[in-house]
Parts: sequence; C-alpha cells; structure tokens
Amino acid sequence: MTEQTVSTESLQDRLYSKLEASQADMIQIRRYLHMHPELSFKEYKTAQYIQDFYTELGVEFRANVGGNGVVARIKGTKPGKTVALRADFDALPIQDQKDVAYKSTVDGVMHACGHDGHTATLLLLAKALHELRDELAGEYVMIHQHAEEYAPGGAISMIEDGCLDGVDAIFGTHLWAQTPYGTVEYRTGPIMAAADRFEIKIQGRGGHGANPHQTKDAIVIGSQLVQNLQQLVSRRVDPIESAVLSVGSFVAENAFNVIADSAVLKGTVRTFKPEIRDLMEKEIARVVEGTALSTDSQINCLYVRGYPAVVNHAAETDFLVKTIEGLEDAEAVEGAPQMGGEDFAYFLENVPGTFFFTGAAPEEPYPHHHPRFDFDERAMLLAAKILGSAATGYQGE
Amino acid sequence: MTEQTVSTESLQDRLYSKLEASQADMIQIRRYLHMHPELSFKEYKTAQYIQDFYTELGVEFRANVGGNGVVARIKGTKPGKTVALRADFDALPIQDQKDVAYKSTVDGVMHACGHDGHTATLLLLAKALHELRDELAGEYVMIHQHAEEYAPGGAISMIEDGCLDGVDAIFGTHLWAQTPYGTVEYRTGPIMAAADRFEIKIQGRGGHGANPHQTKDAIVIGSQLVQNLQQLVSRRVDPIESAVLSVGSFVAENAFNVIADSAVLKGTVRTFKPEIRDLMEKEIARVVEGTALSTDSQINCLYVRGYPAVVNHAAETDFLVKTIEGLEDAEAVEGAPQMGGEDFAYFLENVPGTFFFTGAAPEEPYPHHHPRFDFDERAMLLAAKILGSAATGYQGE
Amino acid sequence: MTEQTVSTESLQDRLYSKLEASQADMIQIRRYLHMHPELSFKEYKTAQYIQDFYTELGVEFRANVGGNGVVARIKGTKPGKTVALRADFDALPIQDQKDVAYKSTVDGVMHACGHDGHTATLLLLAKALHELRDELAGEYVMIHQHAEEYAPGGAISMIEDGCLDGVDAIFGTHLWAQTPYGTVEYRTGPIMAAADRFEIKIQGRGGHGANPHQTKDAIVIGSQLVQNLQQLVSRRVDPIESAVLSVGSFVAENAFNVIADSAVLKGTVRTFKPEIRDLMEKEIARVVEGTALSTDSQINCLYVRGYPAVVNHAAETDFLVKTIEGLEDAEAVEGAPQMGGEDFAYFLENVPGTFFFTGAAPEEPYPHHHPRFDFDERAMLLAAKILGSAATGYQGE
Amino acid sequence: MTEQTVSTESLQDRLYSKLEASQADMIQIRRYLHMHPELSFKEYKTAQYIQDFYTELGVEFRANVGGNGVVARIKGTKPGKTVALRADFDALPIQDQKDVAYKSTVDGVMHACGHDGHTATLLLLAKALHELRDELAGEYVMIHQHAEEYAPGGAISMIEDGCLDGVDAIFGTHLWAQTPYGTVEYRTGPIMAAADRFEIKIQGRGGHGANPHQTKDAIVIGSQLVQNLQQLVSRRVDPIESAVLSVGSFVAENAFNVIADSAVLKGTVRTFKPEIRDLMEKEIARVVEGTALSTDSQINCLYVRGYPAVVNHAAETDFLVKTIEGLEDAEAVEGAPQMGGEDFAYFLENVPGTFFFTGAAPEEPYPHHHPRFDFDERAMLLAAKILGSAATGYQGE
Repeated sequence: MTEQTVSTESLQDRLYSKLEASQADMIQIRRYLHMHPELSFKEYKTAQYIQDFYTELGVEFRANVGGNGVVARIKGTKPGKTVALRADFDALPIQDQKDVAYKSTVDGVMHACGHDGHTATLLLLAKALHELRDELAGEYVMIHQHAEEYAPGGAISMIEDGCLDGVDAIFGTHLWAQTPYGTVEYRTGPIMAAADRFEIKIQGRGGHGANPHQTKDAIVIGSQLVQNLQQLVSRRVDPIESAVLSVGSFVAENAFNVIADSAVLKGTVRTFKPEIRDLMEKEIARVVEGTALSTDSQINCLYVRGYPAVVNHAAETDFLVKTIEGLEDAEAVEGAPQMGGEDFAYFLENVPGTFFFTGAAPEEPYPHHHPRFDFDERAMLLAAKILGSAATGYQGE
Repeated sequence: MTEQTVSTESLQDRLYSKLEASQADMIQIRRYLHMHPELSFKEYKTAQYIQDFYTELGVEFRANVGGNGVVARIKGTKPGKTVALRADFDALPIQDQKDVAYKSTVDGVMHACGHDGHTATLLLLAKALHELRDELAGEYVMIHQHAEEYAPGGAISMIEDGCLDGVDAIFGTHLWAQTPYGTVEYRTGPIMAAADRFEIKIQGRGGHGANPHQTKDAIVIGSQLVQNLQQLVSRRVDPIESAVLSVGSFVAENAFNVIADSAVLKGTVRTFKPEIRDLMEKEIARVVEGTALSTDSQINCLYVRGYPAVVNHAAETDFLVKTIEGLEDAEAVEGAPQMGGEDFAYFLENVPGTFFFTGAAPEEPYPHHHPRFDFDERAMLLAAKILGSAATGYQGE
Repeated sequence: MTEQTVSTESLQDRLYSKLEASQADMIQIRRYLHMHPELSFKEYKTAQYIQDFYTELGVEFRANVGGNGVVARIKGTKPGKTVALRADFDALPIQDQKDVAYKSTVDGVMHACGHDGHTATLLLLAKALHELRDELAGEYVMIHQHAEEYAPGGAISMIEDGCLDGVDAIFGTHLWAQTPYGTVEYRTGPIMAAADRFEIKIQGRGGHGANPHQTKDAIVIGSQLVQNLQQLVSRRVDPIESAVLSVGSFVAENAFNVIADSAVLKGTVRTFKPEIRDLMEKEIARVVEGTALSTDSQINCLYVRGYPAVVNHAAETDFLVKTIEGLEDAEAVEGAPQMGGEDFAYFLENVPGTFFFTGAAPEEPYPHHHPRFDFDERAMLLAAKILGSAATGYQGE
Repeated sequence: MTEQTVSTESLQDRLYSKLEASQADMIQIRRYLHMHPELSFKEYKTAQYIQDFYTELGVEFRANVGGNGVVARIKGTKPGKTVALRADFDALPIQDQKDVAYKSTVDGVMHACGHDGHTATLLLLAKALHELRDELAGEYVMIHQHAEEYAPGGAISMIEDGCLDGVDAIFGTHLWAQTPYGTVEYRTGPIMAAADRFEIKIQGRGGHGANPHQTKDAIVIGSQLVQNLQQLVSRRVDPIESAVLSVGSFVAENAFNVIADSAVLKGTVRTFKPEIRDLMEKEIARVVEGTALSTDSQINCLYVRGYPAVVNHAAETDFLVKTIEGLEDAEAVEGAPQMGGEDFAYFLENVPGTFFFTGAAPEEPYPHHHPRFDFDERAMLLAAKILGSAATGYQGE
C-alpha cells in the first residue's frame, strides 16, 4: 500500500524530473525549428524532423496523417483512457527581424506564433512519457498538427484521417507572449472566437468627377455599406453576446477627378456562438442586397467561414484547473475569451477537452505575428508539466 | 392720322389715369378683404363680394367656375386677341399678429400671402378696362381664382370649366414683400418650382431599449433613410439642374428607454424640370425599397405631386419686359427662379403667358406666410398698370 | 447532541412549515396591495400598511427611513450575523387591463412589476422569523424600500438613513414572470445593468423646405448623430463586454415643407462595468461635440446616470446556490445578465450579498410593465423559503 | 463710297477665302503636331515650331513668354482696338490608341484634347491676317499658350509676362468632339467651372480586426466623412446654383483581418461662383474638423484651388453670336455650362471676352482625354473663320 502510494506520487514527480532534465533539449529543438520554419501545408522537413525524433525514440507513429500531420501513440502498461495532446508546427509568411542567434534562416518565413515551442514541448513530453510507459495507465496520442495558420487548417483532415480514433479527451495549449510566465489562462466555454472573412465587390458606374448624375458612385455606396454594416453589432446582436465586424480594407483607387467605378471591401467577423455567427452572415447578405437595390448597383459578397469558436468543455476545464493548482510554479486564472481563431476548435467538436494559454511573456513582449515576436522559453517546460500531469492524471477521473 | 396717334397714346395714358384715380378704392377693397379672409375652397363670401362688384359694374361674369372661381369678360369694340389676367383670392390658416386697423377679424385665418391685394388690383383694373371698352380691341378675361394655397388648387378645375376658352395669352403677378417697391422680377422659363410632398411611414418592431436584438429600430432606419435621401440631390441630379429634397418632419415619440416601433417622415421635393421631378420620385422609391430590404422592415412611401413648375413663355416674357420698360415708375430685373410652388403653372401649360413678381416690400418686411406679413399697398397700382398695359398692348403683338 | 441536531433541522423545517401555513395570508396581502397601488415616492398608504403589520406583530420597526421606507429588525436570542432582506413596494403609472378580482382600483396606477408580491413575501417571512426568534442566532433586518421604479430611487436615501447599519450581508429577489415557477436564476458578478438616460437637443436653424442653404437642418443633423452614436457600441466597446445605446425618441415635428429648426433625441445606455459606462458617457459627449462642430449647430446633451449595475458578490452567490439546492421545489440555474436597471445595486455597493430572480411565470406571461402583467402567486412562498433559509443559514457561514 | 462698301465686304470674304485656301496646310500642321506631342511645361519643340512658323512668315513675335508661351502681334495699318486670340498647345500623358497615320510617335504622350488643332487654326489665321494687314484696323495678338492641362497652367504666367498688355478683348475656342460639326456653343456668364481638388488623410489607430476598442477605425471614419461631405451640396448650396463634390479615390488597403490605421481620400469640387467655391472650401474644412473631433482621430485636409470658372462677358458674347449668325455654315446655340476647368478663365478676369465651343464631333466620337480621341478636322477652318471674323469685326464695336 505504502509502496503504491509512493509510486503514485513518484509518477508525477518523476515525470517532472524527466521534463526538467530535458529542458536544454527542448530549447535546442525549439531553436532548430525556429531557424528552419516552413509555411502552412508545406511543412515537409518539419514533419520529417518529428518523424525522425520518434523513430530514434522507438515510438510507433503514423506519418502523413491528413497531410503533413504526424501522430504518435504511447501505450501504458495498464488499462485506462486514451488522452490526446496536440501541438501545431507550421510557421508564417513574415520576415524575422529579431537579433538572436536562432533567427530564421528562411527569407520571409518565421515562427512568429510559437508553434516551434509547441512542438519542442510535445516531443520532449512524449519522450518522458515513453520512458515512464511501464508505470502508465491508458494511452497517449501525440498529435503533431500541420497548417494551423491557414484555413481550412490541418485539424479537419487529421480528424478525418483518424487521429482522434478512440480518444477520450484532448488537451492543448498555446504559449502566450502577452501573459506573464507562471500564469495559465483557462476558461470554460468559448475561449477563442470563430473567425470568418468577407469580401464585398461593389460594381457602380464610373465617370468624370464633375458629372455624378451619369454615374453610380462606388465610394458613396461603399461608405453607406460600411456605416450600415456597423449597425449589425449594435442592433442585431444580443448585447450579452459578443460579435465583431470590421472592414479592414476599402480600396477604390482612382484619380481625384473621377467617380469610382468599383470598390472592394474586405473584412472579418468574429463570434463565439454558432447562432450569432449564422445571424451575422445572414444580416451582412441582407444589408448588401438592400444597399445594391437602393443604389441601383451590383454588389457581390463572398463570405468565407474560418475556424469555428474554440469551446472548452466544463469537466475537462475544471480538471485542468485542479491540475494546475497542484503545480508549484503555476497559477491558474480565468481568462477573457479571445476574438482570434484556432482550429483546435474542431478537436473539441469531436471529443471532450480544453485549450489553455501558457504565459510566456519575454522581457520585451511583441504581439503574436509580429516580426520581432519571441517568447520566454521557460514556458515550454511549464506547458509540458501541465499537459503531462493532466494527461496522466486524467486516468483517475 | 394725328388723332389716331393721340388716341393710341391716350389709351394707355387714360388707363393709367383711371387706375391712379382708383387707388383709394383699391386699398379700401384690399383692406376689407384682409379683414374677412377665408380658407382655400371655402371662399364663399369673397366670391360673392367679387360677383357683387361685377354686378354693380354691369360686367358680364360667370360664378362658381370650377368651384368658387369667378370669371368676368370685358369685350372691346374692335376685333383682337383674348387676353386673360388672373388673381387668386384665398387666405391661410394663420393667426394675424399685426397691429393694424385692417387686421383679420377671423380667428386663425389671415391673408398672409397678398391674395387680397391681387383681387383688389384685378377688380379695379377690370373697372378701368370696362370704362375704356369702346376704345379697346379684343377681349379681357378676368380670372378670379379660388384655392391657390391648397393642392390640388383651383386652377385645374377652373380650366376644366372653361376659363381659358378662346384665350390667346395670360398674365399674372404676385405682390412680393421680399422685393423693393418699383422693382419687377421676370424670368423666361421656370420661375417657380414644382412642389411635391412625400410621407414615409417606417414600421419596425418596438421593444425595450435594452434589447435591440429583439427589435427593428425605426429611428435608426429613419436616420439611414434621411442620410441616403440626401444623396439623391448630390449624386443623381445633373449639377446644372436644380432640385431640393428636404425631410421637414421626423416623428418617433417614445419614452427614452424603448426602441421605436415606428417613425413617420414628411418632406418636400422641389424641381423645375419634369424629367428631374420624375427622377426624384423614382429614386426616392428606390431608396425606400432598398432600405426596407436591408433593415428587414416595412416602409411605405406616399409621394404626392403638388403644382408643376411655373414655366414662363419666352415671347410673352420678352413682351412683358418691354411693357415694364415703358413705365416710369418700374424697373424690370431678371429674377432667380424660386423653389416655391404656384398653380398658375397650369394656365401656362395651356396657353402662352408669363408670371412675374411685383415688388411690394414694406418698411419692415416679413416672409410670406408669416403672422406679421404685410405689403406696400402702392404696389397694387403698379401691378394694375403693368397687367393693364400688357393686356391692351398685347393686341399689337 | 441529537436534540440539537433535530433542533437545527427543525428550524428550517419549522420555518418552511410556518411559511407554508401563511400562504393564504401572503396571497391575500399581495392582492390587497395590488388593488391599492401607489406611485414611487408617494407610497404613503402602503408604508402605513406595512407599519400596521409590524405593529400588530409586535416587531420593532423604524418608519420614514430615507422617505417612505420602513425597516423592521428581528433579533434572535443567540449571537450571530446581521442579515438584511429587501422588498420594494412602489407601483407604476400604468392602467391595469387585467380581468381579475384583485385588479387595481386606482386609475392609471398598477403593480405591474410584482413589488406587491415582494412585500407580501417579506411580511410573512418576518412573521415566521419573529415567531421563531427564540431559536434564531443573529439579527434580521427587513428593508421595505419605497421608490425603486423612479430614479434616484429609495435605496440611496434609506442607506444614508442607516438601514444597512451593522448589516453583514443582504439578499433580495425579484419575482420574474418570464422564468418558469420552480426555476431560480442566480449569477455571480453583474446581473443587472447600469441604466442611464440621455437627452440631446439639437438647435439648428429652421426655414422653408425649398431653401436648405439658408438653414441648418436639424433632422439631417439628428440623423447623423443617430448613425454615429450607433458606432460607439461596435467600435469603442470591447466586444467581450456588453453595452447598449438606444435612441428611443426622435422628435422634430413640423409641416412637410419646412426645414426643422430643432430636434430632440432621447435614449438610454446600459452597461455592466463602470469603466464601460464612463467610456460611453465620454464618447457620447465627444460625438455630440464633433457633430455640432461639423454641422455648425448647437447641440446640448444631458446625460443622467440612473442606477449602477447590480453586481452580485461571489461568496454570497455561491452560498445562495447551495441554499437553493437544498430546497425540494426549486432549481438553481445560472442566468444571463439582464440589461434592465435596479437600485438594489446600491445595497451591494455597501455590503456583500446577492440578488436573484425567482421564477413566477403564469400560464400566459406578459412582460414586466405590461398592462396585463401578472405572476404565479406560488412563487411568493418559494421566494420566502429561499430568503428565509439563506438568512438563517448565513449564520453558519 | 461704293468702293469702300465693296472693300468692307471683301475684307471678310477675302479672309474667308484665304482661310479656305489654307485648309490643307492647317490639317498638315495639326497632324504634324499630333505626331509630336509634348507634355505641359515641357513643350519646347512645339514652341520652337510655332516660332519658326512666325519667323518664316515675317511676323514679329515674342518667345518664352511666361515659360514656353509664344505671342505674335499683327498690326493693321489703321488705328483700332487690340484683340487677342488664344490657342493652347500642350498634350497629355495618355497612350495614343488610334489607328491613323498621324498617330502620336511619342510613347505615353498624346494630343487627346485637340490643342494641336487649336494651334494649327491660330497659325493659319495669323497668316491670313498678316497677308491682309494693309486692310486691317487695330492690332491682333496671337497668344500661343503652353500648359493648359496642368495647374497652375500657363495663362497666369503669360499674363504676368505682359501678353495682355494693351489688349481690349480676347476670344478663344475649344474644338469640341461631343458637339456636331457646324454647331457652335456659346454662353454668357459661367461656361466652365472652377475645378479644385482636395486630399484628405485620416490618421486613426490600426489594430487587429478582432479588437476594435483598441483602435480608431480609419475606414469607418472615412465612410462617415464621405457621407457627411455629400450633404454639403444638398444642404449648404443654394439649389439655384451648381456645385459638385466627388470623392474619386478612397484607399485603405490592408489585410481583411486588421483595422485600418489610415485612409486617404481624394476628390474634386466644381463650382461656377466664387462665393459658392469659398463656401465649399470652408464647409469641407468644417466637416473634416468636426469628424476628427467626434472620432478622436487626426484628419488633415489639403484643398488645392485649380482654375477659376470661365466667366464670359455679356457684350463680347452677344457680339460673338451675331458674328456666328453671319456665317453660312455655323449655327450658334446656347450651351449648358460645363463642369470641367480651363485656364482661359484668367484671361477673362483681366480683359473682356468670351470662350466658346466649336463643334467637331467625328463619326465615332470619344470623350476628350480618351486614348482614342479624335475630332473632325473641318472644324478648324470654321473656328478660324469665327475667330478671324470676330477679331476684325470687333473693330466696329
């Protein structure tokens, strides 16, 4: 009895010890990946790097899952639940402007969102779990996902290709450069918004700036549209709910003395609830149709759905919070939902789980997707401990 | 030959002499009418007063022409053209606030536009022409028109009832309190605008001010409409042409903490050219329809055409100018077109003629339709001279 | 020990028994009050009725607290905490249109919000607590508040007059006709919004509808304002937060053929957080100032703060939920915050506590403030049980 | 006496005969210039070509007048008035797309407005007048103006350099491809508008499309501006007068998921009257300032005045009409004023004169400034006859 108790305690302790011992490797792998970033859907070498790691480790894995995805499975020796952990590994079309030794070596491509860190974290956690496999119950599915940054993303195709087969729960995290190291943000329910985009093409009729009556002024029509679209959030959406509609681009470039023949508006819609998302899409179409009618112009609206909202499950989130509270060096705080998008959403539509933000603010933090983005590398170890502790602890739930 | 020359000259001279001699009567009649105003379509006593005048004078007339209209005909002894002169005689629903002996005796009714003066002018001119009938060529049709102030006005029905039968030309004037005495404003082409009105009823869906998403906010919809209607003038109308669209009334009266269920907008459209008028009516309907569609509301628009534009004929206007230039105490100046309406328009759609403004500014002028409106009574004599001179002189054209 | 345990159990049981036994009285009192409603700040007879009740009961009370307020104090025989319970008792300027025997007997005044029920509930609960006083620890403060419906409300002045002196916690409920009987809605944090109102007076320059250039069109200016104010919610407020701005009244009533001299807009702002409330007030002022500048008009904006948001305390809300879970006939559900206002807010700014909605939907529910509003009278007994159980149970916290 | 009469008649006849005889030269010169166009302010070879023509002709001229301008003076042998005639000679930055033998040989430069024709017309007219100099009274000033197409234009500097010294009247024409050959459009008062331009730079604060509250959305601000600027024409300008305000360019080009940091709007204002022009400039500034205030942004507006309106003098226009009526192959019609700009305006601010349009529509007319623009070359002879007849006839005025 006493032995077992010791053993249970020492599982987590030994997991932590192993992870701590691997911190230098973690950082080295992260920096290697940072120097060799690849764009979404083109992460061939990164996928190979991951496969090589598992091959060397002697862990069974499946490559080319739904594209460039890699899925490794580590089985414990005791029966138990199957828990998935996910890390994404694609980079962004941004020019690295940092002055560090591990700066990107690829022109115009950069790990400006921390996916290199996610990957390094998961690889070393896999190694630790593999080494502890004889003590483990259940099974651990390491989902290395390609193409998170570019819709439709890699999650859907990996799910279709079976990466969640038999999975009981999933956990995922994002290293977050806007949150201090040591703080972990969780939230039940929506934690990241559905992120859609729209493109509106207004076809008026151009002409000389002095003769408006012979024209249909695409700039005046576009301005009406911008004004009227703004009213969707303030009038059509329940004030308790959240929605954003932003027109980010308005282009009708002409000489000063003409009247614009056409204009193109591009924008985004962010929502948490499917019904609000449906409402926004429907109302945009309505405003576009009505404005075309009242201005006798032709307006075409393309509405493209991006990732749905990331909606955390209550039980798994509560469990995560308790897990974090058991860690000395982490504090769990309830975070506000974020309006950005993430295709982890699809995993949570299929299995219970939760997604959280691991604080990783460096001394001088830049926003994610910024050319000088970086993060506090200590956060990788913390993320590994939380994910590992949650995955193994989930057996007792 | 010499005698004839003398006779020709003395016709106009004697006409002027007779008119000058009748100035006191002119003022007396005007003041009597001023004290006894009657509303449009209810000018029974005024019509009787006019009939009594002609009966006493022994001039043939027809009563109840197209309503309360009175038409007297004075025939010269020589063959010639038939020339009509018109004076309107209805008053307005305004409370007289002047401090004069001849103030209105009827509560809430007032001759605030000078029609009393028009009538006195035409009656005394008729008397002078009647007395000179042996020297006159042609025929003179005195049109005393009821109901100028209230659409559809009296002109249409009087024309339908034959007041213009056989008429070769028509002249009419308005005593004008914004123009100095002695100045006469003429203009070829449009001199007064077509004056239409519209009424827009927005049916949204009311609710509590805290729950916009359950409503269709009639005030926001109405404001969109006001903004979009303003763009018709600036974008749809040829800048060389004139058009006005004004929403004069916006009523959605509710408690502060509700969302308006409905709103009523009333306004006016002024134009000079029929094609611009048609355009405005069509475009208002288009904007209303499109706004209803884009706001998912029901919007009803009633567009009621008022009087068309008063469009003066070139030849008669040129002739009038020469006539005025022959008068010592009058100066003809080309006036800007006015955006106000006048049903003299219908006469000019049927026969050639011209309408002009006889300056009648008092020392302290108030706008027409103002409770303190008055005019310089000397202008009546001048108007009588111009009309009489034009009518008799037109025989020589 | 056993006795004590029995005694503890039986306190709640006996409280419930007494309340159940008083249900007929509860309904009778509620119906009497329903037939004799009084407007805010004029609830003289209702206050007297409450005083008479306590006098007859032999319970110490204080009358005219901060106006018409009545505060009764019931002291247990054991030391303990002081817990306040609040019921409001004013009615509304609405004509009762129900067909029931207990219909309002006062023309144009009606208990259309359920305050009659709140009062009956608290009176019978006081009676039960008074009868059980020998078993009770602590002290119970029955706050009968006048004037909840009309800002500045009665709560502020009652607090200033000492009604919360020595109070450790406060509980209050609203019978809610939109929620089914048996359901109780709770929420930590903001549960009801801050409800402010604004009134904007636009002074343009009127004129004839045909001459816009001589005017400053107050309707066009007002429409601009409505459009621009709508953008505050969509652009200035964090999408995670809630805010509503509704212009409920837009009045510029004129003839169709003028241009409006002035216009008056009235509206409301609802927010949950003080910083969002401050932001809205500041931004409205900014938009008003800028619009006045760009339209060369004078615009005056009066912003009147109503009740702040009702912000429930976490510990008291958690405690309430457990209390409700202990009741057989009630289910606690987390409710969405409501955008309506309530001056219970002030009590919670001074002492810990929580405010909740006791489901009371009748067979055919009408909105609160509707002329046919009524509620399921069984909900009073349930509300009394919850309040009583919470108050006495709070001693153990 | 008889001889003189004959002589008078034969002056005009002989002028016409000489012009008719020079038609082939006129066309040849025009086509040469058409093949060798030069941009505004860079018309060195064209100016040299004109100088060479006058040198060969033996006519005194002054080169480099106010830039590339050339001014020749032909003196009659009798005393008389000094009459100026003007032709502009610059070309446009447009690629010639016509399929004709005389197509532009300069890449990206084209005589797409007919100035080549103006120059050929004036040169051959100068030749005819020079040959008839012994019969002529007065003096004839041939103003060959550079840089009409590009503000500030050549007219101002040529005037400053004395080209109008001693001039009693000036006449100028534009060959007009939208008016049929044989028709000449005249107008007293404004015939071409003042053409100004403005550029508005909105500096908001950019950010992520999901976080509007952290930004100042330059596209929403720009749309407000466009809407509010449209109301200047409909509300601030006398409906009898003309004004156009068109925003021709609206550029805020960004990714769809951002909020625009800045936006640039470019547009034009066209007016006929200086006071309306002043009003528009002032009101634009007011709207810009107010919008900046209400949106808490920085908006900079640059308003650049182009040419003023071309305002024809009444006496010279009447004289021109009579001159045209004396020509067999031309009909004078009153034209509507045009909203385009022309720096002939400056000449008419200094001396009396008139500017008119000589119909020159080819079989398939294209708008001026179109890459396929061309004109009916017969119109040059007609223009030469009118200008020559007006200039010599003006001696008798």
